[in-house]
Amino acid sequence: MHVARERQHNPLGLSRRSLLGGAAATAGAVTLAGTAAGPAAAASTRTVDVAIVGGGLAGLTAARDLVAAGRTVAVLEARDRVGGRVVNLPLANGGVTEGGGEFIGPTQDRIKALADSLGVATFTTYNTGKNLLYKDGKKTPYATDGILGSVPPIDAAGLANAAIVQASLDDMAKQIPLDAPWTAAKAAEWDKQTFESWLNANAIVPSAKFLLDVACTSIFSAQPRELSLLFVLFYIAAAGNESNVGTLERLTDTANGAQESRFVGGSQQVPIKLAAALGDRVVLSAPVRSIVRSGSGYVVTADGITVKARKVVVAVPPPLAARITYDPLLPAARDQLSQRLPMGSIGKAIAVYDSPFWRADGLNGQVVSDSGVVRSTFDNSPPDASYGALMGFIEADEMREYDAAGVDEVKAAVLKDYATYFGEKAKSPTSFVLQRWDNEGFSRGGPVAYAPPGVLTEYGAALREPVGGIHWAGTETSTHWNGFMDGAVRSGERVAKEVLAAL
Amino acid sequence: MHVARERQHNPLGLSRRSLLGGAAATAGAVTLAGTAAGPAAAASTRTVDVAIVGGGLAGLTAARDLVAAGRTVAVLEARDRVGGRVVNLPLANGGVTEGGGEFIGPTQDRIKALADSLGVATFTTYNTGKNLLYKDGKKTPYATDGILGSVPPIDAAGLANAAIVQASLDDMAKQIPLDAPWTAAKAAEWDKQTFESWLNANAIVPSAKFLLDVACTSIFSAQPRELSLLFVLFYIAAAGNESNVGTLERLTDTANGAQESRFVGGSQQVPIKLAAALGDRVVLSAPVRSIVRSGSGYVVTADGITVKARKVVVAVPPPLAARITYDPLLPAARDQLSQRLPMGSIGKAIAVYDSPFWRADGLNGQVVSDSGVVRSTFDNSPPDASYGALMGFIEADEMREYDAAGVDEVKAAVLKDYATYFGEKAKSPTSFVLQRWDNEGFSRGGPVAYAPPGVLTEYGAALREPVGGIHWAGTETSTHWNGFMDGAVRSGERVAKEVLAAL
Repeated sequence: MHVARERQHNPLGLSRRSLLGGAAATAGAVTLAGTAAGPAAAASTRTVDVAIVGGGLAGLTAARDLVAAGRTVAVLEARDRVGGRVVNLPLANGGVTEGGGEFIGPTQDRIKALADSLGVATFTTYNTGKNLLYKDGKKTPYATDGILGSVPPIDAAGLANAAIVQASLDDMAKQIPLDAPWTAAKAAEWDKQTFESWLNANAIVPSAKFLLDVACTSIFSAQPRELSLLFVLFYIAAAGNESNVGTLERLTDTANGAQESRFVGGSQQVPIKLAAALGDRVVLSAPVRSIVRSGSGYVVTADGITVKARKVVVAVPPPLAARITYDPLLPAARDQLSQRLPMGSIGKAIAVYDSPFWRADGLNGQVVSDSGVVRSTFDNSPPDASYGALMGFIEADEMREYDAAGVDEVKAAVLKDYATYFGEKAKSPTSFVLQRWDNEGFSRGGPVAYAPPGVLTEYGAALREPVGGIHWAGTETSTHWNGFMDGAVRSGERVAKEVLAAL
Repeated sequence: MHVARERQHNPLGLSRRSLLGGAAATAGAVTLAGTAAGPAAAASTRTVDVAIVGGGLAGLTAARDLVAAGRTVAVLEARDRVGGRVVNLPLANGGVTEGGGEFIGPTQDRIKALADSLGVATFTTYNTGKNLLYKDGKKTPYATDGILGSVPPIDAAGLANAAIVQASLDDMAKQIPLDAPWTAAKAAEWDKQTFESWLNANAIVPSAKFLLDVACTSIFSAQPRELSLLFVLFYIAAAGNESNVGTLERLTDTANGAQESRFVGGSQQVPIKLAAALGDRVVLSAPVRSIVRSGSGYVVTADGITVKARKVVVAVPPPLAARITYDPLLPAARDQLSQRLPMGSIGKAIAVYDSPFWRADGLNGQVVSDSGVVRSTFDNSPPDASYGALMGFIEADEMREYDAAGVDEVKAAVLKDYATYFGEKAKSPTSFVLQRWDNEGFSRGGPVAYAPPGVLTEYGAALREPVGGIHWAGTETSTHWNGFMDGAVRSGERVAKEVLAAL
């Protein structure tokens, strides 16, 4: 267990007890959370129309829509909090920062509509001043935006090459049918190679390859060698709404991109408020162990509670859905899909200072680096800049290197990088929080499950295909903003419609 | 559920009851087998030195060695039989055939020694007469052996190209340190690309590419696009013993290769006899749900039985090991490894005839084909040829296409292929059995878990690294004959030594 998890923020004061019905609240499930399936002594039982596995944005959104349609639901959440990969972390100074998904940008319409409906406001990510390129041991500030923004200070050949590569990727992405990438005319060709193989043939100038590598690890928390080219193209194309196909630049940019804005009070405000409205329909500390068909419905067994339901929504990432016992067994296509979509490797490190001192140096806090444990940073200070916060992503190879390290070791490595980028002051934060998703039992990586070569073409059709009365949600099932909070919300809305039509 | 599973062979008359101690035999675990973790009412408890998860060749071999060293063990097997991916299937005529691993060949010393010690004899796979190439709608018998044997009847350019490709693969394989493939000088280069990408650049003559494709699907039950080149090279190198590095030809050949011999009475005789010697140390129908640290030992909870042990051996494939709940959580490296090693897709179809009629046509029953659901066959008749049996592999894309099909549909497709290869007589078997590993709840694919690009270099070190008192076995952990019965036995021997040293 790591530091951050021990003190997760809960600004509305929701407790397990306050979200639970009386019977479940006494089942003692809290003591079982994250541990073994024990004998379910004194387990409570509920009977509802729809059991929802997972209290992240997808599951909670599905619950909201089903309840609005007059259906009864129970949301079974494994953790002692809602939000899944979206979590607020309290800071020693009384502030709050985010350990998971935090940004919102243009065309992310559904998370925006949800946040609006709950009264959660947004503010613009700090983006004034220059970015910093750290490469070959040299710092170069530059006036641009995003990893692949207009003029990063690399050689002209690299810039030209990167521009061509970016345009090629966007052009190929336009050929991807978002609801069935495996039907693209060139799907077989694109799914038989790693993104690395394609980059090796196309990003031939080293500085261009560097930019693409950083973009890749920043987006997927996986190295280019781990990803199918087809999956990368799908993910790019999905970075938009129904009337606006995605681009690589929209994925990587701050202004006009996926990192454009943040949520006042922290992104977890959205799932927390959504859960509060659902009241005791949400059961915390209830990891689901089995989904068993019973007559025309299902019995869903979690630690401390059993739910009988006509339909089930599984709204957790595919590799975790595979860890539930299904009876009858899932079809081979669905099971083997879930064996083939691993989670990326990601952590976030937030260092807090009395002030965002880098701003005085004309820097916006955004770094792109070729070395260190943190190679991409953001200014995570609050809107009023009453204190400073540097947030750094630890991704893919770097995260794996530090997965088993102690917090102090990670902290030392991170602060060394921050000092390299922003000066000695960065070595003395007033506090430091670390969120390591690889070590979270109910995530085991992040931000999203990705597809290696050959998976989408052979198994993609099983992503959303219901199995009897079991329906699938989660950002990994979304055709827009797959992997993002917006995709999670969209998947919840889609699955609710699907279930309502089937009920 | 499919036909074959309903009537698995049990020639020694072992029943769950006869393998169980009295208490466990009354726990009713049989009714829970393969279904949800239910409340473990009346569960029995045992206290042993070592709890072993999985009663396949790896787990049973480990148990044998630990018992021989004076230790107490309990082997918890999820199915109602031992053997894992090794299973005998009864035939309507009273004979027996194999639904899983069946062949044994040179340098497979440890499975041979084990079989010898148990009195299970071997006989030579029928290999007299000509192979058959079916390509572009044309049948061509040819006098050679194995898929990549000396002179398959393809064009000279293809032959020359295939020979070069084969030699290149063997040469590269020689550079793989078997205990740490990720330390090969070119590991990064080989692990960043799919086998398909490498073949596209090297098997440039279509007929050569065809031969390599068939070899790949026959060996891995996966398409070249799904596999890391580094993993393929490791697997080739592992096809040998300590004094004899593997070759592609040894993997694919019958005479002098991995398909050289078979076991009298069927390969499952080996685990069945091994289990019989272990007596009530082996508990069937006991799928393990959780492994929880308790003091200096562990509590292993299965349906119907709880075992307290000082050490635990997990001897199931990595993707299934991931479905057990661990407390404390496994390290991220181990968990993410298990998210990244999917099972191949495989089935075996055996058609039984009054006689092996193809032999009279000068054919040995071995086909290499470019089409149909079965593209690789063997003569699975018994040593006395008292009846004929054609065994066909259904692999990778072909298996996935038929995973959800009814048995009759698969049978019709298989017999159509057999008739194409061997004539109309093949359409009228006296019986037909089908084993589909993708649909088995405690395998979910086969024959082995394989590595996509990027996995071995980042996660390979976690394959055998113990986690506290939890040790890992199974053919996927073997440095020799990985993926084969021999590898399973070797892994059991290795893990027993490892545990004895730690006890």
